[in-house]
Amino acid sequence: MLPFARVSIIGLGLIGSSMARAIKANMPDVRVNGFDADPDVRERARALGFCDDIADIAGTAVIDAGLVVLCVPVGAMGPVAELIADDLPADAIVSDVGSCKQSVAEALAAALPQATIIPAHPVAGTEKSGPDAGFATLFKGRWCILTPPADAPEAAVEALSSFWQRLGADVEIMDARHHDLVLAVTSHLPHLIAYTIVGTADDLGEVTQSEVIKYSAGGFRDFTRIAASDPVMWRDVFLNNKEAVLEMLQRFSEDLTALQRAIRYGKGDELEALFARTRDIRRSIVEQGQDDDAPDFGRKH
Amino acid sequence: MLPFARVSIIGLGLIGSSMARAIKANMPDVRVNGFDADPDVRERARALGFCDDIADIAGTAVIDAGLVVLCVPVGAMGPVAELIADDLPADAIVSDVGSCKQSVAEALAAALPQATIIPAHPVAGTEKSGPDAGFATLFKGRWCILTPPADAPEAAVEALSSFWQRLGADVEIMDARHHDLVLAVTSHLPHLIAYTIVGTADDLGEVTQSEVIKYSAGGFRDFTRIAASDPVMWRDVFLNNKEAVLEMLQRFSEDLTALQRAIRYGKGDELEALFARTRDIRRSIVEQGQDDDAPDFGRKH
Ligand SMILES: NC(=O)c1ccc[n+]([C@@H]2O[C@H](COP(=O)([O-])OP(=O)(O)OC[C@H]3O[C@@H](n4cnc5c(N)ncnc54)[C@H](OP(=O)(O)O)[C@@H]3O)[C@@H](O)[C@H]2O)c1
Ligand SMILES: NC(=O)c1ccc[n+]([C@@H]2O[C@H](COP(=O)([O-])OP(=O)(O)OC[C@H]3O[C@@H](n4cnc5c(N)ncnc54)[C@H](OP(=O)(O)O)[C@@H]3O)[C@@H](O)[C@H]2O)c1
Repeated sequence: MLPFARVSIIGLGLIGSSMARAIKANMPDVRVNGFDADPDVRERARALGFCDDIADIAGTAVIDAGLVVLCVPVGAMGPVAELIADDLPADAIVSDVGSCKQSVAEALAAALPQATIIPAHPVAGTEKSGPDAGFATLFKGRWCILTPPADAPEAAVEALSSFWQRLGADVEIMDARHHDLVLAVTSHLPHLIAYTIVGTADDLGEVTQSEVIKYSAGGFRDFTRIAASDPVMWRDVFLNNKEAVLEMLQRFSEDLTALQRAIRYGKGDELEALFARTRDIRRSIVEQGQDDDAPDFGRKH
Repeated sequence: MLPFARVSIIGLGLIGSSMARAIKANMPDVRVNGFDADPDVRERARALGFCDDIADIAGTAVIDAGLVVLCVPVGAMGPVAELIADDLPADAIVSDVGSCKQSVAEALAAALPQATIIPAHPVAGTEKSGPDAGFATLFKGRWCILTPPADAPEAAVEALSSFWQRLGADVEIMDARHHDLVLAVTSHLPHLIAYTIVGTADDLGEVTQSEVIKYSAGGFRDFTRIAASDPVMWRDVFLNNKEAVLEMLQRFSEDLTALQRAIRYGKGDELEALFARTRDIRRSIVEQGQDDDAPDFGRKH
């Protein structure tokens, strides 16, 4: 049995359009309605055809939905929820895909006090955005974390879990606070660091920007990929997961200072010991199917 | 005309074995002699067959060489140069592939006061090491930086340039000091940061290592690739390019502190402005052929 017969997707960018495509690929009988605040995105989404219908008004898109998924930047979740409040069917489940979960859960609960809300976060993405960037297999073999509130109806959690599994994801249930801490390490801090170092490299006097670009294959180019991610999405993530991000940043800074001292005082053994330890983590990630073992991410050579 | 008829490669790991393979692929008439300090590596290299001959003593490998290339960790350059000093032909050119150039130039000049030394650095590599990791196309479309001393014979610089071009690289001439500053930004600092963040994630109390691995697709896994690079090679790079690395690290730390403040005080505009700027650098790197535009580095999805 299909977990939902009618799904509405609000926000038709990378994640929203990937979901629509994945639903069409894996549950072709499910009706997918879409909405995006941006008329150009709506027009492009109509041309790409991954939804059955695209409404010009948010409320219209949710009127007969069994599941509504908000796929907008986390700072827009509350306002978007307010837009659909009047048209939301009483028995619909409301979910989202936001990269942080405590602030989104609060915003959705405030805007939709009567609704059944099960926040979620598929840990999958690319550095691209917009409706053209999506693809049906984005969630395959990736984790989707649900953070249901304590009083969430079990049937709703099960339906949403089954829905994500059909899109190819493995599902994990987690407390929203813990989610935000885990993702602060595995996603938010890496993005913050990448944005910073790319900014640093852009600002140097003695080394020109053209030199940085030319010799970027030495390692720098890896960071530029995630530093090319959507600015609004990431602004919202940092503003909405401030506490956990600042905590992880603090730890990182302390570790960086220790390494700086090791270099300054020529402590080769200390450096080598750390560098050997970090190799093991890579090995585990590859073994658990969360990355490819191909050298250089499998880039063409 | 071939720039060199006989090339000796000392150190048969990723870079040394890639050079040997690239010579065989592009200049099949050149005789390639090899040596590695590690008997297991020599045995494996013999089995892989990318050299015409592999000597058990360093001196034997260089006895009739036109070009000798040292492909060992930068801290081993001086000692290796001493090992070959007595057997080096008077007219041979000595070069290397070390990731930093000032300290290597000094070490080689001290060990081989009579020799013609043209240090070099191909800005190409992967996170793998050892003779099995090499491949013939590693240098294709990448830059190779030569840092000849002021009094280097022009003909020697030209021969080495032509040699690297035949291996597929584009050649740039640079002052060693400037090289070390440029690479501190585009390669050494990124590696240092990646090693640090992977270490930080390994050390957390509230977030388990298994969670870090599980949800690494959120961005973290990108950093684990370069943090899986050879520990000895990187220890040597940081110890031998200390000054430039510490200078770049200082700038990075200042920028990180600024970003930390922007998050703490909720300065969304500031964050968004930086995140938009860093996108442009990625675009230039892709346009200049230094990385692929495929989403997520072209990883399989
Ligand atoms: N990208 C990732 O790797 C990733 C991974 C997991 C989760 N997420 C989360 O997924 C969500 C969407 O990210 P994305 O990568 O899909 O971003 P995206 O490609 O930029 O798509 C977001 C879409 O939402 C639209 N939008 C913005 N505000 C809106 C509003 N108030 N009402 C309706 N539509 C609105 C945007 O329109 P405009 O054209 O006006 O901007 C855009 O079309 C975010 O919460 C993000 O944290 C992202
Ligand atoms: N990897 C990169 O991405 C990259 C890129 C550009 C330049 N480089 C530079 O290239 C050089 C080699 O790096 P690599 O990546 O090829 O490392 P690698 O794969 O670890 O190979 C280095 C080889 O040199 C051998 N070796 C170590 N000390 C030696 C000595 N004293 N005499 C003879 N052989 C010795 C090692 O043997 P063991 O088995 O005993 O270790 C190993 O087989 C380094 O200077 C590095 O900075 C590397």
